[in-house]
Amino acid sequence: MSPHLGDGREPDIRSSTPPRVLLGIAAAERNAFFPPESQNALNRLGQISALEPAALHDPETFRQAAAGVTVFVTAWGFPRLDADRLALAPDLRFVMHAASSLHALVDDGFWAAQIPVSQAGAAMAPSVAELSLTFTLSLLRRTHRLDRALRSGADWRSARRGERAREISGARIAVIGASRTGRRYIEMCRALGADIRVYDPYLSAPDPLAPLAAGLHEVLAWGDVVALHAPATPETRGMIGPAEVAAIRDGGLFVNTARPSLVDMDALFAAVSSGRLDAALDVFDTEPLPADDRWRLLPNVLLTPHLAGASVDSRRRAGHIVVEEVRRFLRGEPLQHALTREELERMG
Amino acid sequence: MSPHLGDGREPDIRSSTPPRVLLGIAAAERNAFFPPESQNALNRLGQISALEPAALHDPETFRQAAAGVTVFVTAWGFPRLDADRLALAPDLRFVMHAASSLHALVDDGFWAAQIPVSQAGAAMAPSVAELSLTFTLSLLRRTHRLDRALRSGADWRSARRGERAREISGARIAVIGASRTGRRYIEMCRALGADIRVYDPYLSAPDPLAPLAAGLHEVLAWGDVVALHAPATPETRGMIGPAEVAAIRDGGLFVNTARPSLVDMDALFAAVSSGRLDAALDVFDTEPLPADDRWRLLPNVLLTPHLAGASVDSRRRAGHIVVEEVRRFLRGEPLQHALTREELERMG
Repeated sequence: MSPHLGDGREPDIRSSTPPRVLLGIAAAERNAFFPPESQNALNRLGQISALEPAALHDPETFRQAAAGVTVFVTAWGFPRLDADRLALAPDLRFVMHAASSLHALVDDGFWAAQIPVSQAGAAMAPSVAELSLTFTLSLLRRTHRLDRALRSGADWRSARRGERAREISGARIAVIGASRTGRRYIEMCRALGADIRVYDPYLSAPDPLAPLAAGLHEVLAWGDVVALHAPATPETRGMIGPAEVAAIRDGGLFVNTARPSLVDMDALFAAVSSGRLDAALDVFDTEPLPADDRWRLLPNVLLTPHLAGASVDSRRRAGHIVVEEVRRFLRGEPLQHALTREELERMG
Repeated sequence: MSPHLGDGREPDIRSSTPPRVLLGIAAAERNAFFPPESQNALNRLGQISALEPAALHDPETFRQAAAGVTVFVTAWGFPRLDADRLALAPDLRFVMHAASSLHALVDDGFWAAQIPVSQAGAAMAPSVAELSLTFTLSLLRRTHRLDRALRSGADWRSARRGERAREISGARIAVIGASRTGRRYIEMCRALGADIRVYDPYLSAPDPLAPLAAGLHEVLAWGDVVALHAPATPETRGMIGPAEVAAIRDGGLFVNTARPSLVDMDALFAAVSSGRLDAALDVFDTEPLPADDRWRLLPNVLLTPHLAGASVDSRRRAGHIVVEEVRRFLRGEPLQHALTREELERMG
């Protein structure tokens, strides 16, 4: 990711007045991103004003908040920075997104304005990878089934009578997507002795993972576990369709901490509800998941409410990235977390 | 563990007739221990007869089955080898226990007969350590609470509103007992970036874990996670009493895949049911756990029915150890998994 300083607007940030930074992150998340040490570091960078992102949807509130502000620090719920919004923020020179996906934040109008934008996705990858590992171990060890059996009052002996657990050491794990998260997941699984194969059409020779690469159907049929770590792009939409679900071996364990759009959820549901596969899912095609959603009723799934990236540690790392990246911008140093439009399209 | 060939009975095993081996393992477990390859290797060692351990409790059945048998391969449910039993097995020269604990199998009379005994505990350590890691990650990531909330029909937003997950990378993990299992657990947790301290009164200078050693109350107060890996011995009984449970920090995560006797379960229950601690337990003071047991009702526990050591892989490793160790015995080579009475007392 190369630094991408806009040339549409001239930076005037090295003037004598301290730069103004608008922190448009919900109060509930602000302390998670910025524990006291990070908050102090942020305050030393300039004049920080914090507003609830919900309030900023009102154009007049937004206009007043943006007056004289050169840096926006954004997260979930910040208004989309289209041409109309940008017209209300004439001094904006840099956008630092404390979360990962920029899809709700930027559009064609934003890219046309050539304002550099960075995101803190790097902070989330270890957290997502760890939940994916937790899911993997839980399904292999059948803790989701065993715990449910004991809590539903099942007889001890009948709870013990099911299929035997498998260990991650020696397990075959098929990883779909050599993303930042996928790579961290692979690193952890290998440290625990798993055997890995990867499907990623962009993986090639100098990459250390290239020797592990194989075709999609091949890795699906091979793995004891199938873990998704691909980005949500037009290219990956529905990549795990009915034929791919059918390619997974009987008794296969399906882990999705990435995006629901990768998967034909009806095909997956059919395979899991029949008992052929077990699944652990952090993401769903309908979020919030309705109270009576079909996935909530299956005995052989483990469910979490789209929190893979939301650990204490992940938020703190993101806050740290924000502080360091805003500092770089203000000092005119190369940005380390900037994204171009092309990179964004590839990353999803 | 030194080889410990008995001198009470003279081995006559290098005679021309193939040695007789009695396999006293339940049919349901036999295939798990001995997949075809191991079964073939076992058959090549001598003349194998397989009987249900339950049937062997009848003395006359036992006497007939033991006639001419030099090696017993035992597991759960095998009759105790006291002096009366041994009198019915005059040709017995070696006992290979395919499971771990010998407490139900041997007594003073057995040790007096000076028959060497080996056990396959080494096969189980990785499996137990992996369940302990699965528990650790699950509690840190709160999957036990999140999954339960979603399945009980909880609103998506309220399910998301709880305390944030923590990552194992950077987590403080207090390990009680530098056993074989504890060491494997530590190795895995360190590979994932955890910070470890260990309480084990037998840990000293040349041991690579010695720099991580600290006092019991110190490690309990320090850890985000407390994981038990000590043996069940008279010395460790109740080592985690009310004062030790109280020493664990608020929000601490308690993992027991070892033995229930280590813990004052009433004190632990009080701390977990109050919500001060979360716990993941594979072992219970009453097993089988009654259908209405108090532990089954708590929202902040993860429960499995004493299966930590019972993975597919663990059984196969144990079968492999059995074949190799019986072969060593028959060839007069030093045993690698023999236990003395003193070692057994220390190992629990």
